[in-house]
Amino acid sequence: MAFLRNTWYVGAWSHEVKRELTPRKLLGEPVLFYRKENGDAVAIGNRCPHRFAPLHLGRLVGDAVECGYHGLQFDCSGACVDNPHGDHRIPAAAKVRSYPLVEQHGLVWLWMGEPGLADPADVPDYSHLVDPALKTIGDVMLQKANYELVVDNLMDLTHVNYLHAPYQKNDDFLAAKHEVVHQGRTLDSLRSIPSTTAPPSFTPFLDDPAKPVDYWLNIRWHAPGACLLEVGVVPVGRPRSEGIRRQGTHIVTPETATTTHYFYASSRNYLLDDPKADLETRNWQQLGFHEQDKPMLEAVQEMMGTTDLDALRPVLLTSDAAAVRVRRMMKELMKAETDAGSKPIFVLNK
Amino acid sequence: MAFLRNTWYVGAWSHEVKRELTPRKLLGEPVLFYRKENGDAVAIGNRCPHRFAPLHLGRLVGDAVECGYHGLQFDCSGACVDNPHGDHRIPAAAKVRSYPLVEQHGLVWLWMGEPGLADPADVPDYSHLVDPALKTIGDVMLQKANYELVVDNLMDLTHVNYLHAPYQKNDDFLAAKHEVVHQGRTLDSLRSIPSTTAPPSFTPFLDDPAKPVDYWLNIRWHAPGACLLEVGVVPVGRPRSEGIRRQGTHIVTPETATTTHYFYASSRNYLLDDPKADLETRNWQQLGFHEQDKPMLEAVQEMMGTTDLDALRPVLLTSDAAAVRVRRMMKELMKAETDAGSKPIFVLNK
Amino acid sequence: MAFLRNTWYVGAWSHEVKRELTPRKLLGEPVLFYRKENGDAVAIGNRCPHRFAPLHLGRLVGDAVECGYHGLQFDCSGACVDNPHGDHRIPAAAKVRSYPLVEQHGLVWLWMGEPGLADPADVPDYSHLVDPALKTIGDVMLQKANYELVVDNLMDLTHVNYLHAPYQKNDDFLAAKHEVVHQGRTLDSLRSIPSTTAPPSFTPFLDDPAKPVDYWLNIRWHAPGACLLEVGVVPVGRPRSEGIRRQGTHIVTPETATTTHYFYASSRNYLLDDPKADLETRNWQQLGFHEQDKPMLEAVQEMMGTTDLDALRPVLLTSDAAAVRVRRMMKELMKAETDAGSKPIFVLNK
Repeated sequence: MAFLRNTWYVGAWSHEVKRELTPRKLLGEPVLFYRKENGDAVAIGNRCPHRFAPLHLGRLVGDAVECGYHGLQFDCSGACVDNPHGDHRIPAAAKVRSYPLVEQHGLVWLWMGEPGLADPADVPDYSHLVDPALKTIGDVMLQKANYELVVDNLMDLTHVNYLHAPYQKNDDFLAAKHEVVHQGRTLDSLRSIPSTTAPPSFTPFLDDPAKPVDYWLNIRWHAPGACLLEVGVVPVGRPRSEGIRRQGTHIVTPETATTTHYFYASSRNYLLDDPKADLETRNWQQLGFHEQDKPMLEAVQEMMGTTDLDALRPVLLTSDAAAVRVRRMMKELMKAETDAGSKPIFVLNK
Repeated sequence: MAFLRNTWYVGAWSHEVKRELTPRKLLGEPVLFYRKENGDAVAIGNRCPHRFAPLHLGRLVGDAVECGYHGLQFDCSGACVDNPHGDHRIPAAAKVRSYPLVEQHGLVWLWMGEPGLADPADVPDYSHLVDPALKTIGDVMLQKANYELVVDNLMDLTHVNYLHAPYQKNDDFLAAKHEVVHQGRTLDSLRSIPSTTAPPSFTPFLDDPAKPVDYWLNIRWHAPGACLLEVGVVPVGRPRSEGIRRQGTHIVTPETATTTHYFYASSRNYLLDDPKADLETRNWQQLGFHEQDKPMLEAVQEMMGTTDLDALRPVLLTSDAAAVRVRRMMKELMKAETDAGSKPIFVLNK
Repeated sequence: MAFLRNTWYVGAWSHEVKRELTPRKLLGEPVLFYRKENGDAVAIGNRCPHRFAPLHLGRLVGDAVECGYHGLQFDCSGACVDNPHGDHRIPAAAKVRSYPLVEQHGLVWLWMGEPGLADPADVPDYSHLVDPALKTIGDVMLQKANYELVVDNLMDLTHVNYLHAPYQKNDDFLAAKHEVVHQGRTLDSLRSIPSTTAPPSFTPFLDDPAKPVDYWLNIRWHAPGACLLEVGVVPVGRPRSEGIRRQGTHIVTPETATTTHYFYASSRNYLLDDPKADLETRNWQQLGFHEQDKPMLEAVQEMMGTTDLDALRPVLLTSDAAAVRVRRMMKELMKAETDAGSKPIFVLNK
């Protein structure tokens, strides 16, 4: 399966990258994360070009990584800097890939394509994750499903009324006005439901849960897999700024063609220091993402038996509007990349 | 692997189909079982044509099934009867397969081919399963072996003298007269052993186990996978109607090319209300089918590494007569089906 | 994957072959081991030519094996000697392969190629395994890695300074003079380190561990997978015959293209009757082979995703000299075998 290459992908949460060797597969490639002595995060290829040992089985020597099999050392640019054997000459091919990296707002973004094209300015804005006016709770999980299925799940939020009914059902949701706005590499899916009942996930935090609210639910997709959700409720007729709301971070990065790293978080603007509200968040993340989305997405992947959705000729509904446009935009972006002659940029040992 | 399509297959025991959504894969197809409010059994396709969610993760709404992912509803004919999204229009392709079904004598039979050709009169007679003069004990299990291997096992009963020796060995069995009779879609394999020692599985139920008996063992195969065994002993020279005997139900339905649902039961005409005899039956079903046949068949499948027996050029023995004819008849039936232009009848979403 | 056929492979330790049916896959072929009533070891094919049951699920009848499915019997030449069915005629094709076998020095060697070419004189000399002047401790394990990777591991012993550092590191080892000598089907890799610190695995057995020693480490590879290691230390300037030393048996036999039987032993010339020295040996075999080599080799296999090392263009170092020559010699031997028109010699049932 081909992936979009010249783009930023989240490789890890900042707190996952430590002063130790941490492997993770991204887009089918073995990547090695660690921090330099000065604290900078590093991502290089995890496969030694000598005998193909995974470098994470070795050890850190200063800012370099020593292979645990025969002792070659690589620095954070991927260059071999020590060959302990024979005349100590370093073969020209002795190097691993180094990934352009931006660490920002608690996320570690990697550029998986042609390094010269990497522009840190293109990293999507997830500053809400470190906004002191919000309380953020999140984690990462693996879904045994193609990343496009996970994006489809996020871009058609009508599923919350079925799959997540216990804490998200809203009777006016499916009939709500739905706007889809495309701009550059982003797509917004916007829903407003005026004067409705608050969904169950908000009711514990409202003075009078029975009182009607204005409810909104927006999601912004940024190619290829970063989704930023905003959901909130406010007393009818009041400005949204007065409401209680949550920013949802939902970022997917392919591990392989059929498995996906799913980075998620919820940032709320209420009860910032309330451990019960923290626990509430963790509980529905566990229920919603681990016990509802994950089994469904993995079952869909298994039912499909392929990563090519179109080949199965899915029946399309109006609620698919955003997900279908996202898939079409991804096709265009990938075609543009292929047409520009961009091939797999870095072929190990060539 | 191709399967015979225009024929009845057992999909479930009646008691397995309840007022709840129950998935089972048959011939590689995802099937969903449930009962209507009036108690009728239903079998429809288990894959939603919208986003390919398994319908069994949804819920029953009256006699319809609501998909648990985005809420489409399908009735028991497989038609979509509710689209909760947008203008509620139901796309023409929004349907799942519905399987012609006959529930009879405790078994649920499905027609896996062209619906118009399904004739309930063709369902084999297993009325012994509900005969009040017999006591029936049975269950269903999965064998990780191609269904033809399970049928071979049943159609060459000489294996009981080796694999099931502890409770079935009979010293005169291999030399017994063996008749193979072919008629239409059935084949009978008939064995009579006059004046012999009763096999161990009968001795607990005989007044004098050492006394010689007339012993018979017949099996009728009905294409593609239904085998009806009759085995009995009677005092030498007496009519079989005076004997103690068991009707064995052995029905195999492919799950996939290398896995098989095996529906089995034993119906005895003696000690109908004796819990010890029930337990005896369960014990040798457990031993014989789960601990002897299953490991052997699964090991054979693994040794073969293919489902094409002929490609491995098996050495044939006289004891293979019935099994070989069954395979030949299956080839003819499948060829006839292909020649008649019968293609995969129902292609999802086309 | 092709394997060298006309050569001796270790199939088992002598003590593993008993008066019972023991299966083992070698070079992808199902092999059955047992002992005749006179104690001779036998290796025949483990797949019955009738219905492809594994013969080890049957039983021994004298020196013959009775298939547990339908009762065919095979003698230790692989010939069918009893067909209990019908007219008892034995079909010409009813036979399994019989492997030429040499049991010597505690090892059972099989000839996996053309039987007529098998010459017991070609079995490598492992008489140290039964030398009363040595104490031998060993076992067998399965590595989920291609056998060539296991041989590479043995033929480039510089890995001990990294992977096995805790008990093998020697600071002068990488700079030691290294001689590679090729002769016929063997290759010797010889290292001498005069006046150095004894490696940790020897220090418990030296009067004064801090005192410098002459240290040597030789390994002889015998195609295709038998490696004989000699490692020893002696007070500086004294003859090696006065040293304490260990003969290491490291013999690899492919199970499949990606899994390998690894027969290992250590034969020491000191503390022959010391249970603590035995335990010490078992401990570093467990640590070194099971907890260090095995995870590394299996990770390399997974990282490679292929058994074709060359296709990945490995970076070569001077320390690869012996391993590279071994691979080249194997290519030549296999080419010679192919050129000589040697095809898969024994095709089951043809």
